[in-house]
Amino acid sequence: MDDATAARADALRAWFLGPRAENAALLERLVVESLRDHVFWRRNYHPEDGFTIREADKRREGYEDAVATLTQELLGLLAELKRDVPVFSGRYKGHMIAEQTIAAQVGWFATMLYNPNNIAMDISPVTTRLEMEVAAQLAGMIGYDPGTSWGHLTSGGTIANFEAFWLARGVRYLPVAAAGAATELGLSIPVTTADGSRAELSELPLWQLLNIPNRATLDLWDALWAAGPSPVVTRALGNHSLADIGYQEYSRRLAFEYGDPLPAGVVLVAATAHYSWEKIVRALGIGSNQLVHVPVDTRFRMDPDALWERVRELAGHRRAILACVSVCGSTEESAVDRLDQVLDVRARAERELGVTFHVHSDACYGGYAAAVTRAADGARRTAAEIRAGSGEAWPDEPWVAAIEALGGADSVSIDPHKLGYVPYSAGAVLVRDGRARHLVATDPPYLAPTGGEEPGLERFLGRYILEGSKPGAAAAAVWLSHKALPLDERGYGYLIERTAAGALRLQRALARADLAPFRVVLLPEPDINIVCYLLCHPMLASLASVNGFNERIYARMSLSRREDDPEYIITRTRLRSPMYDGAVDPLLAALGVCSPAEWKASGDEGLVVLRSTVMDPFLAAGPPGPDHVGGLIGALRRAAAAAL
Amino acid sequence: MDDATAARADALRAWFLGPRAENAALLERLVVESLRDHVFWRRNYHPEDGFTIREADKRREGYEDAVATLTQELLGLLAELKRDVPVFSGRYKGHMIAEQTIAAQVGWFATMLYNPNNIAMDISPVTTRLEMEVAAQLAGMIGYDPGTSWGHLTSGGTIANFEAFWLARGVRYLPVAAAGAATELGLSIPVTTADGSRAELSELPLWQLLNIPNRATLDLWDALWAAGPSPVVTRALGNHSLADIGYQEYSRRLAFEYGDPLPAGVVLVAATAHYSWEKIVRALGIGSNQLVHVPVDTRFRMDPDALWERVRELAGHRRAILACVSVCGSTEESAVDRLDQVLDVRARAERELGVTFHVHSDACYGGYAAAVTRAADGARRTAAEIRAGSGEAWPDEPWVAAIEALGGADSVSIDPHKLGYVPYSAGAVLVRDGRARHLVATDPPYLAPTGGEEPGLERFLGRYILEGSKPGAAAAAVWLSHKALPLDERGYGYLIERTAAGALRLQRALARADLAPFRVVLLPEPDINIVCYLLCHPMLASLASVNGFNERIYARMSLSRREDDPEYIITRTRLRSPMYDGAVDPLLAALGVCSPAEWKASGDEGLVVLRSTVMDPFLAAGPPGPDHVGGLIGALRRAAAAAL
Repeated sequence: MDDATAARADALRAWFLGPRAENAALLERLVVESLRDHVFWRRNYHPEDGFTIREADKRREGYEDAVATLTQELLGLLAELKRDVPVFSGRYKGHMIAEQTIAAQVGWFATMLYNPNNIAMDISPVTTRLEMEVAAQLAGMIGYDPGTSWGHLTSGGTIANFEAFWLARGVRYLPVAAAGAATELGLSIPVTTADGSRAELSELPLWQLLNIPNRATLDLWDALWAAGPSPVVTRALGNHSLADIGYQEYSRRLAFEYGDPLPAGVVLVAATAHYSWEKIVRALGIGSNQLVHVPVDTRFRMDPDALWERVRELAGHRRAILACVSVCGSTEESAVDRLDQVLDVRARAERELGVTFHVHSDACYGGYAAAVTRAADGARRTAAEIRAGSGEAWPDEPWVAAIEALGGADSVSIDPHKLGYVPYSAGAVLVRDGRARHLVATDPPYLAPTGGEEPGLERFLGRYILEGSKPGAAAAAVWLSHKALPLDERGYGYLIERTAAGALRLQRALARADLAPFRVVLLPEPDINIVCYLLCHPMLASLASVNGFNERIYARMSLSRREDDPEYIITRTRLRSPMYDGAVDPLLAALGVCSPAEWKASGDEGLVVLRSTVMDPFLAAGPPGPDHVGGLIGALRRAAAAAL
Repeated sequence: MDDATAARADALRAWFLGPRAENAALLERLVVESLRDHVFWRRNYHPEDGFTIREADKRREGYEDAVATLTQELLGLLAELKRDVPVFSGRYKGHMIAEQTIAAQVGWFATMLYNPNNIAMDISPVTTRLEMEVAAQLAGMIGYDPGTSWGHLTSGGTIANFEAFWLARGVRYLPVAAAGAATELGLSIPVTTADGSRAELSELPLWQLLNIPNRATLDLWDALWAAGPSPVVTRALGNHSLADIGYQEYSRRLAFEYGDPLPAGVVLVAATAHYSWEKIVRALGIGSNQLVHVPVDTRFRMDPDALWERVRELAGHRRAILACVSVCGSTEESAVDRLDQVLDVRARAERELGVTFHVHSDACYGGYAAAVTRAADGARRTAAEIRAGSGEAWPDEPWVAAIEALGGADSVSIDPHKLGYVPYSAGAVLVRDGRARHLVATDPPYLAPTGGEEPGLERFLGRYILEGSKPGAAAAAVWLSHKALPLDERGYGYLIERTAAGALRLQRALARADLAPFRVVLLPEPDINIVCYLLCHPMLASLASVNGFNERIYARMSLSRREDDPEYIITRTRLRSPMYDGAVDPLLAALGVCSPAEWKASGDEGLVVLRSTVMDPFLAAGPPGPDHVGGLIGALRRAAAAAL
């Protein structure tokens, strides 16, 4: 271990409260410091006002009763909380949740006392700045230009994905509205089509309007505003844009004006995409039938050849593609799509088919892993450099290529409250071309924007985002955590590399473990840090019996049975057809109780797999720390014996 | 003052940290207690594991450097935060933000250490229960039956309104989908139409299908599932429901199957409705053109006669109405719509026109004011009882009737982070008939619901809501605050009554104040606690000059000019045509610089009014506390003199 790595290993021990609250004194000192600092601010603000609450008031019965009630109820809450999940412990290897950085905890608490609302700078002069700074840090990490991209925090991944999609729809459908407006205003506007040729906007057929690349669309947006006085353009655009006229009228017009009853636009998602995508397309009025699933390979990554086939088929049926959602860290397996290959497919589609679409990377879970690819000076690290630095076998070159491709996606969602180790809730959405935000802007009367004096500074964030009031405390928590743990090899890069190393250690120990009479079937080595596996036994000869057995193991290793305190805590998922078609074949072969055809026919039965998210950065470390790899495997053996 | 009232006045002084941090010792004690309690939990969890972070580790340079970096950056953040807005002070009379209850601050902090995620009970066994309990408390307060209604917390008001609307759309369009499914499956299902008659579902014309009352629609939902095996019904419904097929296909089918190209459904909102409604209908694909504004009266409440006229007109043009949004506590004026009269209009529309719609109350700001109408035993208090208890002239009988009507709305949104005095972010949405949630359910693979063993307990909240991961800390904060301040005359009722009393005191003092040579023009007395006013001077003879003058006063009384520390802080808004048509006429008459027609013609110029939200419960109290009513008026006079 070189000096820099040793220093990081030491720093890691200061970043968290710790599994046994080893850093309790540090956290308490910082919390009390933050509280007293706030208290003295209040005390020194216009001291001439005198006191509203006087010492004598505190001796009155009503006051004392109120304090007694509050204290009693708080003690009750604290007692109740002991029934919560011990995610801080090395014994928790379940969902994607762990303890948070001390920086994030203190940053949140300190700022919550001020309670700024990042809807507008008026009521969050400090934390709106921090939010913009955090967004720029994340943008820089994934390879966006912080000067032209744009981003902000959301209440979580679903809202981040929703917004990315809402922006994408606005961009994808703008050329249709712009063509209508240009015709209405008699404007001549040249535009670049998917194959790179230039054409006159108002002369393009519907199919080509629906296939203008994002960048050209946003240039078109600028050209439109440059072409006429703003109220006139606003009115003309409003007469034609989906946001104003709504889907029902929009569909009617497409059929009427273009005589072209195109089928509804589709959304391509990896077969394993998060269920929230279904929520989102349902809510947006796109409809879940328009979700077209792209098969994943046996590493659970979107298959680029299958993607190309889907795009070609859809183009053949003249079905416009709104967007393709690629995943960076799937919630089940932490699989990282080969985004570089997805972007290649789009480039080929533009070239060969004149078809294009918005590419979104759902990096809610995996986004922070991009920090692994950044050196302290911001330069990219190669896969070989990363491996040499850590001495681990992870990551490989294609993984780094996939991560580097994030900078080429049109939008990316990243959750600080997942691999950012920040308390709930803090999600983030980033768009590559920040102009897109103007397409969804709405103005409230009481927070009229007064113009951004400083470039890149949003005086009124609420105009561009779905949410309204939002916690400045979340922005401060993320900001302080990024200060303590930079988004490179010194901070988050090291932290996440350690979790991947821990996952690899668990994976390989499971592969080697002698659990006779039980046998472990493992999913492939994870792209980041989620290990999936299942146990079988010669006596279990059917899919249903194997599933039932693994469900019973899960029940023994979860808090679902409150009477037993489980030794270790894991979770489970169920791989079903058609989402996992093909991807599960090697597992079924290793299991040997049913064919892929029988598994497909099983419907909702699917295949139960046990799942351990390794967000614990200490798992990979050797003694004198506890051996939770061996511990977990021992617990699995005992649970299996009891479950048989 | 009777004993009970005196005890409440004393308790009020224990609920907050206080303008001068008078309760600092109390807050610090509870925060430290919560932290240590958590620390000891960690320390005592499997002590046999030994230590991951050892005392010797803390003496290593890398560890010390990390602590130094964190401490330094935190100190930087704390210094920065001093530039935040002093919302805790009696000198802050601006936006709807104030300090939070100690209960909410401590509840949030204590629970954040555990960081439960209320997406599913699996990772929030304690706080999901608290969230359901809080929703039931809010439901009970507004008059819903906690046994049949349903609700949960959201990240804020916009998401709460969005969800209410998403549910409403699902309910309003269900009969069309159900009729399609019934025809496909050859099912005969009777249904109750808007005028109360019974009919066969599959024989109803489109117009009638779009006008089935909510309750009958949800009965229909139950009937459909009772009529056939679940997968068959799922498939048949999926073939016809908007959520699956999307708007484009849906519109095409309506035209094709019913030969009935009905115009798009509309949403009725008060002219003064929050701007987020525009965001919401745009995002949902309904389109902002479908927002039909209903004029407000001179108290800024939706005019029920105008509402009836709109409904009649729309019915005449066979335009279906998706929903009517009534406001309880407008964000500009805290106006409370006469919801009782809105519900009367709907009953009349059902009876006379065979037309119905979803009624939503946007009570994001004003919802907690319903606590004023509740006695300690939960019984309703009359307006006379409330006035007798407080000795104030507020509220009147129509106000109580409007608040009591909340129980009759189909859905209500209420923000704990507004008049609940809880830190950001915590919103809430409640639906009267909880069955509606099933219409928007989506299941994730890894958090499969295992069935609610206890009635009313959601094991997996994520299936029914827009968001995914969400902070259990927010639920605990609201829960503890409700325990410290019950939702009746003892707690929130008293607190909010005090703010209304403070607003009334400010209003009347402004009306009486001699600011010569300036004159104050006041908006009517507020329904809750937002006071709006503007200043004029004989020299200012045009609308633009009066507006400019008031903007300059605002600039001097805000933090927009950082160089001067303003004596008092207020905010402002701009009343524009057509939203405020009619409503501003008395103001324009009192001002005497332009006619309503000239004001209308001024477009975006509108009328600037200064705005003071009184969330400070101490404003109404006399000495020995500070006189911030007099202080604010003095500051206004000085700012006006300087601004002329």
